[in-house]
Amino acid sequence: MSLKFAHVALVGKYQGPTAKAATEPARGLLTQIGEFLRRQGCAVTLDDNTAKATGITEFDVTDVESIGAHADLCVVVGGDGTMLGVGRQLARSGVPLIGINQGRLGFITDIPLEDYQDVLPDMLAGAYEEDRRTLMEGRVEREGACIFDAFAMNEVVVNRGSTSGMIELRVQVDGRFVANYRADGIIVATPTGSTAYALSAGGPLLHPELRGWALVPISPHTLSNRPIVLADPAQIDIEYISGRDANASFDMQSLMSLHLRDRIVVRHCDYQARFLHPKGWNYFNTLRQKLHWNHEND
Amino acid sequence: MSLKFAHVALVGKYQGPTAKAATEPARGLLTQIGEFLRRQGCAVTLDDNTAKATGITEFDVTDVESIGAHADLCVVVGGDGTMLGVGRQLARSGVPLIGINQGRLGFITDIPLEDYQDVLPDMLAGAYEEDRRTLMEGRVEREGACIFDAFAMNEVVVNRGSTSGMIELRVQVDGRFVANYRADGIIVATPTGSTAYALSAGGPLLHPELRGWALVPISPHTLSNRPIVLADPAQIDIEYISGRDANASFDMQSLMSLHLRDRIVVRHCDYQARFLHPKGWNYFNTLRQKLHWNHEND
Amino acid sequence: MSLKFAHVALVGKYQGPTAKAATEPARGLLTQIGEFLRRQGCAVTLDDNTAKATGITEFDVTDVESIGAHADLCVVVGGDGTMLGVGRQLARSGVPLIGINQGRLGFITDIPLEDYQDVLPDMLAGAYEEDRRTLMEGRVEREGACIFDAFAMNEVVVNRGSTSGMIELRVQVDGRFVANYRADGIIVATPTGSTAYALSAGGPLLHPELRGWALVPISPHTLSNRPIVLADPAQIDIEYISGRDANASFDMQSLMSLHLRDRIVVRHCDYQARFLHPKGWNYFNTLRQKLHWNHEND
Amino acid sequence: MSLKFAHVALVGKYQGPTAKAATEPARGLLTQIGEFLRRQGCAVTLDDNTAKATGITEFDVTDVESIGAHADLCVVVGGDGTMLGVGRQLARSGVPLIGINQGRLGFITDIPLEDYQDVLPDMLAGAYEEDRRTLMEGRVEREGACIFDAFAMNEVVVNRGSTSGMIELRVQVDGRFVANYRADGIIVATPTGSTAYALSAGGPLLHPELRGWALVPISPHTLSNRPIVLADPAQIDIEYISGRDANASFDMQSLMSLHLRDRIVVRHCDYQARFLHPKGWNYFNTLRQKLHWNHEND
Repeated sequence: MSLKFAHVALVGKYQGPTAKAATEPARGLLTQIGEFLRRQGCAVTLDDNTAKATGITEFDVTDVESIGAHADLCVVVGGDGTMLGVGRQLARSGVPLIGINQGRLGFITDIPLEDYQDVLPDMLAGAYEEDRRTLMEGRVEREGACIFDAFAMNEVVVNRGSTSGMIELRVQVDGRFVANYRADGIIVATPTGSTAYALSAGGPLLHPELRGWALVPISPHTLSNRPIVLADPAQIDIEYISGRDANASFDMQSLMSLHLRDRIVVRHCDYQARFLHPKGWNYFNTLRQKLHWNHEND
Repeated sequence: MSLKFAHVALVGKYQGPTAKAATEPARGLLTQIGEFLRRQGCAVTLDDNTAKATGITEFDVTDVESIGAHADLCVVVGGDGTMLGVGRQLARSGVPLIGINQGRLGFITDIPLEDYQDVLPDMLAGAYEEDRRTLMEGRVEREGACIFDAFAMNEVVVNRGSTSGMIELRVQVDGRFVANYRADGIIVATPTGSTAYALSAGGPLLHPELRGWALVPISPHTLSNRPIVLADPAQIDIEYISGRDANASFDMQSLMSLHLRDRIVVRHCDYQARFLHPKGWNYFNTLRQKLHWNHEND
Repeated sequence: MSLKFAHVALVGKYQGPTAKAATEPARGLLTQIGEFLRRQGCAVTLDDNTAKATGITEFDVTDVESIGAHADLCVVVGGDGTMLGVGRQLARSGVPLIGINQGRLGFITDIPLEDYQDVLPDMLAGAYEEDRRTLMEGRVEREGACIFDAFAMNEVVVNRGSTSGMIELRVQVDGRFVANYRADGIIVATPTGSTAYALSAGGPLLHPELRGWALVPISPHTLSNRPIVLADPAQIDIEYISGRDANASFDMQSLMSLHLRDRIVVRHCDYQARFLHPKGWNYFNTLRQKLHWNHEND
Repeated sequence: MSLKFAHVALVGKYQGPTAKAATEPARGLLTQIGEFLRRQGCAVTLDDNTAKATGITEFDVTDVESIGAHADLCVVVGGDGTMLGVGRQLARSGVPLIGINQGRLGFITDIPLEDYQDVLPDMLAGAYEEDRRTLMEGRVEREGACIFDAFAMNEVVVNRGSTSGMIELRVQVDGRFVANYRADGIIVATPTGSTAYALSAGGPLLHPELRGWALVPISPHTLSNRPIVLADPAQIDIEYISGRDANASFDMQSLMSLHLRDRIVVRHCDYQARFLHPKGWNYFNTLRQKLHWNHEND
């Protein structure tokens, strides 16, 4: 079998509360996966943050930028959170990602640890399903100037801070006034994010191939303020009109405290993240499994 | 001002419970509108069913097929139901429609009766917003043969009949199994239909430019069976697996009683209905008005 | 240990699609349970319908009326549907019920088949949790006369028949106008019924000790027509105002086709069904298990 | 007509953003209402905070405690917020309240300013509908000690602070474990509060006479974590298990920042607030009006 991906970068989970505790087993695990990839004929490099966190020295070390520039494939060992984080960073480069899941399966990281040896060889040879996910570009504008910007794969959220009471948000889509929402907040979610926070807040599931975003108000005062799915080339402007305290967050990670009159601008991003799944993968199987649609005893 | 639409067909509401009662005022009204169109320089023909229902004889009479073949524009006097019905019939022809609303405004028929004289001249001259709406082609297959087919602009619904208890429906999208739904039924809604029955059943609003459909289970047994928005080129198969009694309906009009194992197949239709609105129209204004998002005293 | 329940009646599932197929194993099973009860010192009688369906001859046979008059306890072998049916019939008598579940556990029938020998002796001696459930009395009035009445343990439903389109229902509570609902229908649910159809239709969970009913519109046209929980001594009147076709049903069993202007009257029933559970039972445990609130991989 | 309420206390809105701006018209208005009450034969006293805010000197001035001790009736001029605030303070005393609404009508303050002269004389003579509302007693316990307590008429809310991400809350009712909720937060709402924040978060409407509370999770991760209505004598314990930042709030007013392992305890309060409405008032009329159930053009 010829090899489609010659240079493979390896990234492990190195952030978050469990990263430290997981270092020891992770080290052995990542080394094994790296060596397995080498045996398949790949040149393997290790992400520098992962190297630092685990102390692994068996592989060449590179930073994410050079992964984007030089790797043909990135293998991520972790959960959906890790995968989305790496996906955001590699979006510009077009480098595809494969996710191996240490714990429970995710929506995107769907190769269980015990299966990688069976599954990777075919994928490295080019037999896979490609699953492209759109990204959003979010920015916060204050008095006309951009004071923050970030990519988001899941969602951009504007919501009230710790003080109680609703906030009021004025939403425009492509310059057209949609509504003043009085609510706990608003979520703009990609199809990828439609299974995350937006789903809890009452939003619909969006198929990944849908070119659209969901605009989901969180606990809106007006009961008919239902979620809207917008065609995704749109630019969405969310202006913070009134309230005591509000924040903008991007993929639940970067967080900005807002001033009144700040505008959060969400645009379609030109790049897409490319996730590779084993042959036969399809989105609905994942959905059924993750949302427990199969309970015999329901 | 030069005239963009030389041949205009006129259609009034001639079906439904209020059609008969409305004949008398409708006659005068339609005649006035027709004469107004003539004064703008249009050649005016009257739909034959409307002529029959109202007894109007001032205009040449044609059937819908020949409206599709010869008219440049169709002016519909009625509500959203009438407009969608004519839209379905003219979809193949590409003839655009303008809706004048006798009663309360609709989502699509947004020119109030008292405004048509102000608004039509500019529209006839080519100043309008075009609002294209996708259609679905629905069919019922029994033992492999198509026993019914119809276009739908709003929705295809499969639901339980008069006997109580859930039905079970097996749904596939492009040949991929989605789920067995145990529910009162399932709605497949276009963006146009997303503000109709699907909204009552918990579905999201879909912007008309979104190329997607909502698959909305009605009172599903499994609480995580949330509405899904699908990319619209998909073919959706709904198989009636178990239950005591079930029906398929298309835009709440044509109704088919189902047998176990019948399949309802919903496909993207190649044609689009073209609705014309006065300059400055936009979808969100209509949405705010129809869903009462502006109540000062909410 | 002294015996609290000297005369025990035994009822098996004898209705519904699986009743016939289940006869053979059911015969052996019921006989075993009956003999087990005898060995505990109980006088055991078998419900006549169960005897007929299974051909069991080991026990004295009685009808439900005489179970109500003479038994101290009724042991039901079946699922929630069987249990609710027997509960309805025995409500007037005050005879308590214990449910042994052949298949998956239910909300009420919570003793798995494999556990009955461990669990019944203590319960027969008086160590149990009692779980009283309110019933509703429903009637259909046409031109002032009652044309049908029934008890319901789960819900009274008025909904549209097989023809499509909403129906309009005028609801009054204790003579006070609540609303005209345009919807697929309305559910009036007891706490017991709040985990059944009403839950699928968007209603809240009601704790069994709550003295209240949920009034849950099914796919209402007006989005702010949210479920209401009423104090249960109320009389609820539902008048069928307009529509093409409507039905009333009681616990999804007895079904009445309605005429325009028919009134469905729901009242609090003086009797309560008494279900006995093993010591330590509580409602929230059942809820967590049945609604899958414990998934580690959620 | 004999006078049922001899000593009447008068309270105006004196808090919140609009209190200051409204001082001038409020002064004249309150003076007029006070003089009108005098002309009906009542002894009128003015709440001291209102006197301070408005500078009115025509009436004897008392504090809320002495209103509770000596007044027969309290007339509140303001909106629902003011009314609920005064209701909380007077709950122990049993003094009934009448609300005159300066702006739009509320759920509780339902006498429009222009009607008070027509409506008050009959009410003062004893012709009114009494509407009793339950209160909750909420407290925050840290390491076993109560560090805060307050009454609430609408709701007790525990929710995440400004940092993003869910919190985890462990809920017990009367010592029985209900669930670990991973969510934005949880609302415990009285019937009065069921039309406020809890409604936005997806909770049901609770009739004021219902002896129950709604437990409404806010954007819960587990989709089957639906609102539960509990019988109200229950004690509810909410323990803050994990998360980055959380708060407890009582009627959206007093706010407590929480530590991990803090417990929020909600109990039934022995007192009830007594609101008086004009003869003929009923709850459903208010509901229809406030929730816009009457739109002819829906």
